[in-house]
Amino acid sequence: MTIQNKFARLATDNAPGQEVRQTAAGIQALLRGDALPGRPVDFSHGDVDAHEPTPGSFEVFAQGVAKGGSQAYTEYRGDLEIREEVAARLADFTGAPVDARDGMIVTPGTQGALFLAVAATVARGDKVAIVQPDYFANRKLVEFFEGEMIPVRLDYETAGEDRAGLDLDQLEAAFRAGARVFLFSNPNNPAGVVYSPAEIARIAALAGQYGATVIVDQLYSRLRYSGVTYTHLRAQDLDPQNVVTIMGPSKTESLSGYRLGVAFGAPAIIARMEKLQAIVSLRAAGYCQAVLRTWFAEPEGWMDDRIRRHQAIRDDLLSVLRGIGGGFARAPQAGSYLFPRLPALAVPHADFVRILRLQAGTVVTPGTEFSPHHGDCVRLNFSQDHAAAVAAVERLASLVERYRA
Amino acid sequence: MTIQNKFARLATDNAPGQEVRQTAAGIQALLRGDALPGRPVDFSHGDVDAHEPTPGSFEVFAQGVAKGGSQAYTEYRGDLEIREEVAARLADFTGAPVDARDGMIVTPGTQGALFLAVAATVARGDKVAIVQPDYFANRKLVEFFEGEMIPVRLDYETAGEDRAGLDLDQLEAAFRAGARVFLFSNPNNPAGVVYSPAEIARIAALAGQYGATVIVDQLYSRLRYSGVTYTHLRAQDLDPQNVVTIMGPSKTESLSGYRLGVAFGAPAIIARMEKLQAIVSLRAAGYCQAVLRTWFAEPEGWMDDRIRRHQAIRDDLLSVLRGIGGGFARAPQAGSYLFPRLPALAVPHADFVRILRLQAGTVVTPGTEFSPHHGDCVRLNFSQDHAAAVAAVERLASLVERYRA
Repeated sequence: MTIQNKFARLATDNAPGQEVRQTAAGIQALLRGDALPGRPVDFSHGDVDAHEPTPGSFEVFAQGVAKGGSQAYTEYRGDLEIREEVAARLADFTGAPVDARDGMIVTPGTQGALFLAVAATVARGDKVAIVQPDYFANRKLVEFFEGEMIPVRLDYETAGEDRAGLDLDQLEAAFRAGARVFLFSNPNNPAGVVYSPAEIARIAALAGQYGATVIVDQLYSRLRYSGVTYTHLRAQDLDPQNVVTIMGPSKTESLSGYRLGVAFGAPAIIARMEKLQAIVSLRAAGYCQAVLRTWFAEPEGWMDDRIRRHQAIRDDLLSVLRGIGGGFARAPQAGSYLFPRLPALAVPHADFVRILRLQAGTVVTPGTEFSPHHGDCVRLNFSQDHAAAVAAVERLASLVERYRA
Repeated sequence: MTIQNKFARLATDNAPGQEVRQTAAGIQALLRGDALPGRPVDFSHGDVDAHEPTPGSFEVFAQGVAKGGSQAYTEYRGDLEIREEVAARLADFTGAPVDARDGMIVTPGTQGALFLAVAATVARGDKVAIVQPDYFANRKLVEFFEGEMIPVRLDYETAGEDRAGLDLDQLEAAFRAGARVFLFSNPNNPAGVVYSPAEIARIAALAGQYGATVIVDQLYSRLRYSGVTYTHLRAQDLDPQNVVTIMGPSKTESLSGYRLGVAFGAPAIIARMEKLQAIVSLRAAGYCQAVLRTWFAEPEGWMDDRIRRHQAIRDDLLSVLRGIGGGFARAPQAGSYLFPRLPALAVPHADFVRILRLQAGTVVTPGTEFSPHHGDCVRLNFSQDHAAAVAAVERLASLVERYRA
């Protein structure tokens, strides 16, 4: 495979945050009517001005800078003292021990952890089970390392409210067909659904039976709405050498500007991840690592308040989206993503996403980033200013009517 | 190739900064005499407490945090306004235009830039010319992407004082044998030598003749000692589509704790690098990117002073090292690395490096990290406290006598 071919598959034109590099060429001919006034909202990522970083995070960063060289130059896997502090909290949160010395690595964002985890487990030709829909980079990472993707359906639309809807038979078939790695996000990005205790138990049982490694991206597992039961795969009856869990403070805690993530679990895999980090980026920015000291140590009531505010936004947006005839929107159980399905339109959905940007000042991420079968869905990160988000989704609903097939 | 084999080649046990993960097993039996007292010095990287970060860097970071969401979430290739500011200065410094929009990317450290640049140019089986000795990650990156390395000798010991000593015939032979990428550092890491105008002109001519892409790591190109002429490859007569230059403020400017680097040049390669960054780490930490505003904009006289202090340390260390009979130490022309060759010892040089740590509190990086032919050399980053560095190298010289063959 030439380098050109390899990168042709890594298209990022519609990736969240990259809309600024698109051109409006060709879209003008499709436009109907005038633009709708209103404050623009970029739903491709959260608004950390509306939901500010954890209190005290900047002060802890400043302390890291003041500490000097020992904070700037840490082990590639991150500062040991910080790892120890965070490992104890992660063990408490997930219900299973975390080995700070050998079973944990600090990375530049959870993206950094995902990249290293896939690189450390997938060689050329290896089969990897990937959920559809799931976080867009999962598929791209498997492609980049020339693994072979085996898709597993997530029927979140028909699953009911108490399970995510993973097709467990298809997952078993993937393992039977030779998949040795299963990579998934819980809560699911983009659908916001949480895997039920029974689903997680079954995933653990199948992985154990087939000796597969499971990489679970739990980035949003702290932002859970009322009535949701969350199950940590790593606390199940499963060989700890076969599980890597990924988390980070970029989303719920709004600390994305510091680029921090962690992966924890199987020491052999973590060791490979560190070897690779040595030639990928050396380490998460040393000073930034200090900010992890605030993680899982937020002021009393802060997280509850953050969850309450997001749940209120979620509910208001859902009611607007559910007013769109012929669409579908399941209530996310955790995280800050909505993934509504839009009705049939007179323009291709990919163009409608660009029209939304031009005529409604509303940036959403097309469903094709997450699955080949979800082209009529769009993802909205609703961690936004409440009123602005409602108005932007109302504009979206208006344009759906304007462009309805 | 299995994932285990792939990572077995990525050994980092002796990598700079990872000494803390080594064990002392087996070395006790080789020890002669007692440990030498003195303040420990870690020459594996610079001491940013002795040579502090650029004045104002923290304040600019704080402004970035205050700016909020727009600084946290930049394009994957970095904030455009910052790219524009830095591109103008880099154009001025290197003597050739830099396209801020399409020909530049901000990365997590220069390591991040190197990783992306190699990934964007080397596919499986591609031949890559690599200098021996050169920065340890260069070789590892080629191996990781399953390229084929063609070594090119750098005869810095015999080259005299006015050239680096690259074997240009061997470079041409590498191109003739099919190398389509040439990756090298200038000044050379570890030897600290600067390529002469004639050497750079010849590299440019050969790359042009054979249509090869050149990736040049100029990380240390600002820290030049008196009397040195520095030549920027990108300002030579060479197709700009075939040159990528890498720099960053981690070393001379002591900003390593922020993990910042840039790559600039060929837009097609930069575009691929950004596509990959989207799944590797998304972006350099948004808040940290703000610190680039201080780069090439240091207070009047600050850089001159920094160079003067380093030159003084260099000269004092050189005089100690040149007192070791049977060794060799060329004066570095730029950067803060010394790469002395030690005489024959009664213990393997790899063990001597560990003995130095145990008995002299002196951490150096073994030459084997940089070349298979330089096992009797050690690298010292002399960006240290002046007096402590001299004392530590005096302890090294004492132990050479104690263990001399």
